Amino acid sequence: MDEFKENLNIASEYGARVTTGIDKLDDIISGGLPKNSITLVSGTPGSGKTILCYQYLWEGINNNEKCLFITSDERVSYIIKQANQLGFDFKPYIEQGTIKFIYLDIDKSEIYKEIEKEIRSGQYSRVVLDSLTPISEVPVWVSGVHEIIPTDNATGTLKYPTGSIPATRMHIRRIMTMLSKENCTAVVTSEIPEGSRTLSRDTVSEFIADGIILMDLDTTMDRRKLTVRKMRSTSHTLKPHEIKITVGGIKFL
Amino acid sequence: MDEFKENLNIASEYGARVTTGIDKLDDIISGGLPKNSITLVSGTPGSGKTILCYQYLWEGINNNEKCLFITSDERVSYIIKQANQLGFDFKPYIEQGTIKFIYLDIDKSEIYKEIEKEIRSGQYSRVVLDSLTPISEVPVWVSGVHEIIPTDNATGTLKYPTGSIPATRMHIRRIMTMLSKENCTAVVTSEIPEGSRTLSRDTVSEFIADGIILMDLDTTMDRRKLTVRKMRSTSHTLKPHEIKITVGGIKFL
Amino acid sequence: MDEFKENLNIASEYGARVTTGIDKLDDIISGGLPKNSITLVSGTPGSGKTILCYQYLWEGINNNEKCLFITSDERVSYIIKQANQLGFDFKPYIEQGTIKFIYLDIDKSEIYKEIEKEIRSGQYSRVVLDSLTPISEVPVWVSGVHEIIPTDNATGTLKYPTGSIPATRMHIRRIMTMLSKENCTAVVTSEIPEGSRTLSRDTVSEFIADGIILMDLDTTMDRRKLTVRKMRSTSHTLKPHEIKITVGGIKFL
Amino acid sequence: MDEFKENLNIASEYGARVTTGIDKLDDIISGGLPKNSITLVSGTPGSGKTILCYQYLWEGINNNEKCLFITSDERVSYIIKQANQLGFDFKPYIEQGTIKFIYLDIDKSEIYKEIEKEIRSGQYSRVVLDSLTPISEVPVWVSGVHEIIPTDNATGTLKYPTGSIPATRMHIRRIMTMLSKENCTAVVTSEIPEGSRTLSRDTVSEFIADGIILMDLDTTMDRRKLTVRKMRSTSHTLKPHEIKITVGGIKFL
Amino acid sequence: MDEFKENLNIASEYGARVTTGIDKLDDIISGGLPKNSITLVSGTPGSGKTILCYQYLWEGINNNEKCLFITSDERVSYIIKQANQLGFDFKPYIEQGTIKFIYLDIDKSEIYKEIEKEIRSGQYSRVVLDSLTPISEVPVWVSGVHEIIPTDNATGTLKYPTGSIPATRMHIRRIMTMLSKENCTAVVTSEIPEGSRTLSRDTVSEFIADGIILMDLDTTMDRRKLTVRKMRSTSHTLKPHEIKITVGGIKFL
Amino acid sequence: MDEFKENLNIASEYGARVTTGIDKLDDIISGGLPKNSITLVSGTPGSGKTILCYQYLWEGINNNEKCLFITSDERVSYIIKQANQLGFDFKPYIEQGTIKFIYLDIDKSEIYKEIEKEIRSGQYSRVVLDSLTPISEVPVWVSGVHEIIPTDNATGTLKYPTGSIPATRMHIRRIMTMLSKENCTAVVTSEIPEGSRTLSRDTVSEFIADGIILMDLDTTMDRRKLTVRKMRSTSHTLKPHEIKITVGGIKFL
Repeated sequence: MDEFKENLNIASEYGARVTTGIDKLDDIISGGLPKNSITLVSGTPGSGKTILCYQYLWEGINNNEKCLFITSDERVSYIIKQANQLGFDFKPYIEQGTIKFIYLDIDKSEIYKEIEKEIRSGQYSRVVLDSLTPISEVPVWVSGVHEIIPTDNATGTLKYPTGSIPATRMHIRRIMTMLSKENCTAVVTSEIPEGSRTLSRDTVSEFIADGIILMDLDTTMDRRKLTVRKMRSTSHTLKPHEIKITVGGIKFL
Repeated sequence: MDEFKENLNIASEYGARVTTGIDKLDDIISGGLPKNSITLVSGTPGSGKTILCYQYLWEGINNNEKCLFITSDERVSYIIKQANQLGFDFKPYIEQGTIKFIYLDIDKSEIYKEIEKEIRSGQYSRVVLDSLTPISEVPVWVSGVHEIIPTDNATGTLKYPTGSIPATRMHIRRIMTMLSKENCTAVVTSEIPEGSRTLSRDTVSEFIADGIILMDLDTTMDRRKLTVRKMRSTSHTLKPHEIKITVGGIKFL
Repeated sequence: MDEFKENLNIASEYGARVTTGIDKLDDIISGGLPKNSITLVSGTPGSGKTILCYQYLWEGINNNEKCLFITSDERVSYIIKQANQLGFDFKPYIEQGTIKFIYLDIDKSEIYKEIEKEIRSGQYSRVVLDSLTPISEVPVWVSGVHEIIPTDNATGTLKYPTGSIPATRMHIRRIMTMLSKENCTAVVTSEIPEGSRTLSRDTVSEFIADGIILMDLDTTMDRRKLTVRKMRSTSHTLKPHEIKITVGGIKFL
Repeated sequence: MDEFKENLNIASEYGARVTTGIDKLDDIISGGLPKNSITLVSGTPGSGKTILCYQYLWEGINNNEKCLFITSDERVSYIIKQANQLGFDFKPYIEQGTIKFIYLDIDKSEIYKEIEKEIRSGQYSRVVLDSLTPISEVPVWVSGVHEIIPTDNATGTLKYPTGSIPATRMHIRRIMTMLSKENCTAVVTSEIPEGSRTLSRDTVSEFIADGIILMDLDTTMDRRKLTVRKMRSTSHTLKPHEIKITVGGIKFL
Repeated sequence: MDEFKENLNIASEYGARVTTGIDKLDDIISGGLPKNSITLVSGTPGSGKTILCYQYLWEGINNNEKCLFITSDERVSYIIKQANQLGFDFKPYIEQGTIKFIYLDIDKSEIYKEIEKEIRSGQYSRVVLDSLTPISEVPVWVSGVHEIIPTDNATGTLKYPTGSIPATRMHIRRIMTMLSKENCTAVVTSEIPEGSRTLSRDTVSEFIADGIILMDLDTTMDRRKLTVRKMRSTSHTLKPHEIKITVGGIKFL
Repeated sequence: MDEFKENLNIASEYGARVTTGIDKLDDIISGGLPKNSITLVSGTPGSGKTILCYQYLWEGINNNEKCLFITSDERVSYIIKQANQLGFDFKPYIEQGTIKFIYLDIDKSEIYKEIEKEIRSGQYSRVVLDSLTPISEVPVWVSGVHEIIPTDNATGTLKYPTGSIPATRMHIRRIMTMLSKENCTAVVTSEIPEGSRTLSRDTVSEFIADGIILMDLDTTMDRRKLTVRKMRSTSHTLKPHEIKITVGGIKFL
């Protein structure tokens, strides 16, 4: 009881919250994601990362908030169709301008500028990047004025060896800064290779993000789990929660 | 009971299905593979990956669907003979044009164009690629118009270091895009080295594929297992299923 | 009883102490950190490293000591805001000059000189560096007069291969020497990738620092732990202590 | 009973078999190795790989089949002497032309051509390669007409980095193709480093071979084991079998 | 009883001994370190390696033997002060010339010559090198007359790749030879990264040293351990011994 | 009983034996090492490898056989002295020419020629190489006439990358061939890094040697073990044997 009240007090002290579209998850993290924060949703293949993103944006649509879905997958229409099969029919909202889907084409050198412009001009409340991992692997270089630009020229002008920890860290920082612009509250997915005990393939993004939601599954026990591993400005349990994935998305058991 | 009905409802909502030729497997995944999806069949040596592919195409033949078997092994006639010994006599169907076997010769720079043309023109319903692993290891480069071409020139023009995660990812994406053309529903096999806990040798393809079927064996217990590890647009159990391999292919115990 | 008295005697013999702001932690380490020492606070993401730093500096402010917070994160105002949400309102003290926040921009070649000058001129009693890890990854070179300077030119003039153990060791030594100037007692945070058993990502800084405080968490048991792993000039238990993180910072259970 | 009969039926369906010289092993794999197949015999040092090869060829001699022993060890006469000490006196059969021992000198660029010629002209029924591992490590290059030739020039003209997975895969494929010529049924030994859980040092050959026989030993229990890990066109148990090694070769307990 | 007497006999046969300053340790190793030997003291951070060195030299001072402390840490005065806090007041003995502290500046190309000269001329009975690890990482090259010299030029003239096992081995051999000059009995500390099961970071020095003393700690059980892992010319137990670290140094429990 | 008689029969069939100087070890391996064989003695630091070599040569001296001790350690006189402390006084036998100690100076390009000449001319029955590991790490190149020569020029002319498996394999083969000249029976020591499960640091020599004797120790249980892991032409148990090391060398418990 006392513990619960303490948490409530904290919630109010900790400032504004952005609901996730999963009520029980909001309960755990003092009402929702901290406003203006970046949360990493990490997991092995098939753990439900993208589905959590659909729910997060669907919740935004229901609250009349402007939403942006940035994907590293060129099959944008396939993604929209797949979301629809899970119960999230984004199409009418795309048409009325509440939500926008952008393919982040890492071969376009102007891509970051375009996305930053989009984020600034669009007044988005909710931004999803699905997924951070392929993007953060692209070699980048830093211009004199602290801009980071994807590059084809993988030698000479690079500050760090491609694929090294500091190269990945610099690139992830750049992306995170881009996402934390204005009033965005961002959710970013990240790959965890099966059998790895790290919190992301790059082992760096979890130190930069403000929060980490870990998606996991256990084939022997036929169980799916969601764990709030880190959440700045939030008192939360570290315990894994059993979930299921069905039409309508993630549900706590 | 309720659970089962819920699954049925989902199945219908989730759209058209393509049967696998293994009834019990179809039962688990709401009637079959999602139409137009790409499923990774991953496993250690001798776990039965190729046999599952034979069954998948045999089922297609029985349904009068056009089938394509792309192999990374030049011994095409040996493969057809081996399938025959397992009870799948593809020969008459090759002659009547229902199924086609193609050797994907990774040394031919035009190979992808040819296969894409084949897939488009052939109106294949079912495509198998056995196996993805050796193909995805070939160094590739990207031309200006987003084509990826296998290359002998492993220096200078490569965007990523050969064998690196982003190089493999780019190549696998390219192959997957090729396979998801038109109305194909594709099955792609992938190597898992013995003792590894990953879902493929490359640790990337499982994040790109729409589904993962894991083939496993346990010599101590003399058991073979099949696990549906991931299947987009499908509510499925994560539990491993005991199988046996015999004439006629994989059978659930 | 005897053990306890012996510890007390040691404490007095071991020289002056700097309180941490966490009473129970001070109890364990004979009254506080050894004066003029450098303590590494290592932990996985979300383990509470930065919060310990806030407490350490808040304690300094309450004792009217001059404090310096050096961060590798450019979002300085975000950090100050986040500290505030945890109950540490540094703003008035920044204005009255008791505490200073500096962003260590590793792209500026003069940065070390500036920080050394700051440390010397500022008469800081307490210095925090949060975090050591990204900084120690930057390639450096040594000039003739034993100065180490971050460099963009990662080839040729480097003594050791970038990212190698001796390169990291040399850089960390350089930073530690900078921090141990004058009467500073320093706290330095360090990343431990999840699943690693090392005491820092670099595996070197723990051998150079005078003390190591290990922050850990166990999601299965929903527990957070703090362990004093090493503390020069201090007789201390090696046992992990259960803690919780809440408004006001780290509290021992 | 039923299981056993089913196996017999399979055996006849699965086509011609080549006996191994170890009766109990033949029982397990439906009468012997599939004709024209390549079987990998993998194991740690001292596990009995070479001895299995002696038995395989001795059985051939007893059946009046022509046999070829290709070795990567230049001490050919030492090998013949060692076989003799184990009860396999190959000398008279060498003289009468039933068996031939060849040293595969990987420094000779014409070696593959010579061996292929030998295999084609010699009408060998049984071929042993002992061992594949040192041979597959040699850097090779591909000529325009798909020939693979060992090379001293380890830079520039190589398609893949020496020692990389695709380089090893290409080379092993080349060797396997050479061995599967005509009516040969081949046995190929492969090293497994102690403590490794893979099925070969290269982790690739087990995916290319038609069968895998795993040789293992357990010093704590003083036991030797043989496991049929994979065998195309064969229904077999995966259970390890206890064996002993003595004069006359491998015996099942 | 018999065992004990046998050990005593061995001790006398095994030749002269040098006491360590820790009575119980001397008991275990037949009276002390073998005269003229080199003992590696290996351990994780905070395991007490340096403190054992203080005791070893303090014992030398009490026996009126000349002592040399070679450190890889430039903060020599800090080291002397820290030793003092632990009860070893070396200052008066430095002044009267019984003990000397030298900073081994690996950037000085003449450093080895100077130290060798010091060792030869100084008639030191006891030499400590704390620690071997950072020194052995420095790239070196061999001149025609078998001298090894630290080098800034890390390419071209190096016999082995920097950081490779043979490069490290050559360098450690060079250092060990330097220390085994004249009548020295040397103690050399070495880093073991936390979580590693090796006996040193380099995995080579333990094969070259005459003895290995392993320092370990177990945070869960709050225990510190010392194990004599190897000691040439000595019959010793391999059992770990529980110790504590306090004013006066290491004490056996 | 039957088992034992069978072993005896094998022993006689298996040909001449060379006693090791450790009676119980000879019992296990059918009377001794196979004549003209090469046995690898592998172990972690301090496991007793070198002591086994002393016993092996001491046995030779007692049988009036000519012995050669090749060492990779330049401190030859130190080695002789150390052997003496263990009860093996080789000095008089060096003087009378029964045994010879040679330092294998890997920096001398003519070294292999000299040693081969020595082995051929000296009519040695027993040869020890202590240890193989540092020697096998030296880069070598192959001349046109199949000679392998240590080289300083680590680029360009090397067939395999320095430190790679095939480079090490080629070098070890070369050394093994050198040792198996004439009527020698050789014992070769090899390093196993602590915590490794391999049978040598290089993971290759155990596949080339005719026999492997594994030396091991367990600090927790204070036990030393000797295991015959492999022995060509010998039926032997795989069980570890408990030993102790004392004056006079290795003794079975």
